[in-house]
This record gives sequence, structure tokens and C-alpha cells, in this order.
Amino acid sequence: MTGERAAAPVIEGASARKHRAILTAAEEMFLDAGYLGTNMDELAARSQVSKQTVYKHFGSKEALFVELVTTMTDAAGDRVHNDVPDPTDESDVAAYLQDYAERQLEVVMTPRILQLRRLVIGEVARFPDLARALHDSGPKRAIASLASVFRRLAAAGLLEVDDPDAAASQFNWLIMGEPVNQAMLLGDEAIPDARARRRHVAGAVRVFLAAYGRG
Amino acid sequence: MTGERAAAPVIEGASARKHRAILTAAEEMFLDAGYLGTNMDELAARSQVSKQTVYKHFGSKEALFVELVTTMTDAAGDRVHNDVPDPTDESDVAAYLQDYAERQLEVVMTPRILQLRRLVIGEVARFPDLARALHDSGPKRAIASLASVFRRLAAAGLLEVDDPDAAASQFNWLIMGEPVNQAMLLGDEAIPDARARRRHVAGAVRVFLAAYGRG
Repeated sequence: MTGERAAAPVIEGASARKHRAILTAAEEMFLDAGYLGTNMDELAARSQVSKQTVYKHFGSKEALFVELVTTMTDAAGDRVHNDVPDPTDESDVAAYLQDYAERQLEVVMTPRILQLRRLVIGEVARFPDLARALHDSGPKRAIASLASVFRRLAAAGLLEVDDPDAAASQFNWLIMGEPVNQAMLLGDEAIPDARARRRHVAGAVRVFLAAYGRG
Repeated sequence: MTGERAAAPVIEGASARKHRAILTAAEEMFLDAGYLGTNMDELAARSQVSKQTVYKHFGSKEALFVELVTTMTDAAGDRVHNDVPDPTDESDVAAYLQDYAERQLEVVMTPRILQLRRLVIGEVARFPDLARALHDSGPKRAIASLASVFRRLAAAGLLEVDDPDAAASQFNWLIMGEPVNQAMLLGDEAIPDARARRRHVAGAVRVFLAAYGRG
């Protein structure tokens, strides 16, 4: 949501409304029918704009899809990084990581984001740019943010991390590996509920702090 | 390979040869054209058998695909669990885990297995049984094997593991999370070479043993 709002001031009034209408219809159609199964004439009709307007706003079907991926994953990412202050005391680090990871799981483990991921993975051979867009604004961005956090916590003497990028990747996959794999292969029924997420994260945080915590 | 051989004694002679010929053609065609894109008439022609023979051996297109998935992932799994004896000394545990994980990465991070995974993920909504077959003979089996290993090592006093299943999942995703994600989204060019695999695994083993090692 935040991602869409942030883009709005640039394109004003009717044009901004059309832009959003096209993205909304695109999300619905791509997630439902897949990339190849989405017809641009039908997409224009559903957005209540002309096909020229779609192309004026987005250039091509692929560029529209890439913007949709970026918008959806950026919005999800923004919801994870919602200005929680860093911990200042060693005893707060576990709770901070627990909270961070639960938020990330909650945001990623939604049917829309998971379906987007399945869709681009299925099309990676034909349309590599779609999956790359998801990679860059999804896991890559998430891991880079974690690396910044770990760099700050190490500088503050709250973690012992010599390679923040490696530690960030390890933390990310301790948290995301199992639930994402299950949802990719077993479908949305495998999405863990809040209680299961909490327990899963607690185990991962314990392992991470055994390696990188102080003391 | 081992998986195919193990099945062979049950179906003898010409019938066994046909069975293997169909599976070989199926692997080539499914990985190349996808599940829906594979035509059963063409598959029979490529296998040099009649379409009736294909159905006599496998029952349906879906059952054939499930057997292909099981054969490919079981064979990969067998290559990981190739009768390496358990470590008997605490100082050997790290090397044992390093070796185990490098072997698992090497076996999974092949273009064929990765393409199979992309394919079933892209079709999970329409054909959930295909992805479930990969889940069960792939990650689920790998994690169950690891859990047995950790149970034995804990019983021998070489690890301190209270929940072997959780520890197995954590180790598995510390190892597989990043490389599999990269290959899913960035394609086969993201497959790490032997040196990158070794370094990646060493970091993961260090984290794991910080949590579960003795001392």
C-alpha cells in the first residue's frame, strides 16, 4: 500500500487514477490467469481505459508486470521495516529479532505474494526479468535491510557479526526457508498461522543468537 | 540413477526397457515443454512404444509425471545418503556435516532438478499432486534423513539437540535456502560452483554447531 501511495504524487489526478486502475486490474488478472494467460485488451477493458492508455503508462506487458511485482513486493517490504527503533540493550535483541521476523513472515506469507512468486518461478526460462524483479525487491532487499540492522547492532556491541551479509542471509533463510518452501509446493493451506509463526521464529532466533549473540 | 535401478528387477526384460524408455522421454519432454505442453502421442512416439503401452505402464499423464518426479528426486536423495559412516568423535562432527551438506547442494543444484522444481511450482494451483510428490521425495525426505542423523549424533553425545526435526529443518534451510531461492528466481546462472558451495556450507555449519554443538 505504502508503495502505491508513494508513487501517486508524481502522476496527478485522472492520470494517477488510471495508473492505479490498470495496476489493480493487472494484479487480479496476472495472479489469476498467469503472465501468458493475461490478455492486454481484456486488461484495458477491465481498467476502463483504452489499450493505448495502458501502453502509454507502462510501455509493454512485461514492463507492466515488472512494475506490478515491484509495487507489490516493495509494499510488503515497507510493512516489515516500519520504523521500529533498534534495541539499545543486549537483553532486548532477541525480542527485536523475534518481532522483525514475525512481521516479515506475516507480510510474505500471504496468498497474493506467494502466488506472484509461483508465477514468476514458473516463467523464469521465458521471462527472466519478471523473476529478477521479484528477487531484487523481495529477498534481496529483505536481506540487505537485515544486513544493515546487523551492522548497526554489531557497531553498538549488541551482536558479534564479522560478515553482516552472510549473517543476514542465514537469518533470512532460517526464518523463510521452511514456510516458503512448504507454501510453494503444498499451496496456501501450508501457510502457518500466527502461533506456528511465533514458535518457528523463536527457534530460529535461538540458533542465530547462539552463533552471533554476545555471551 | 539408483532409484531407477532399484525399480528395474520388478519389471523384467522388454517391459522394463519400455518403462525406462518412457521415463527418459518423459523427463526430456516435461522439463522442456512443461506439464501441459507435453503431448502423450508425441511422448509415445519418442519412447518408440504405443500410447496404450504408456497408459498400461503409468495409468495417466499425471501418474507418469509423479513417478518421474519421485524417480528423479529419490535418485538425487540416494546420492546424498551414500553410506557415509557417522562420526564417532566430537572433532569430526563439523567435517561430517560439511561433507553431507556439500553433497546435498551438489545433488540438488543441477539444472534438471531445479527445472523440475520450477515446473511443479508454476503448476501447483492446477496440479497440486505434482508438487506434493516433489515435496515428499525432495525436501521432506531430506529433512527426515537429517533428523535421523541428528537423533543418532545426540544419542552418541556428539550434539545437543532437543528437537531433531526442528534442528534438521534449520540446518536444511541454512544450507539450501539461499542457493535454491537464487536458482529459482535468477535461473541456472545462479548455481554456485564447488568453491562457493564449500564456503557457504562452512558458514552454515558454524552457525548450526554454535547452537547444537557440545562445548
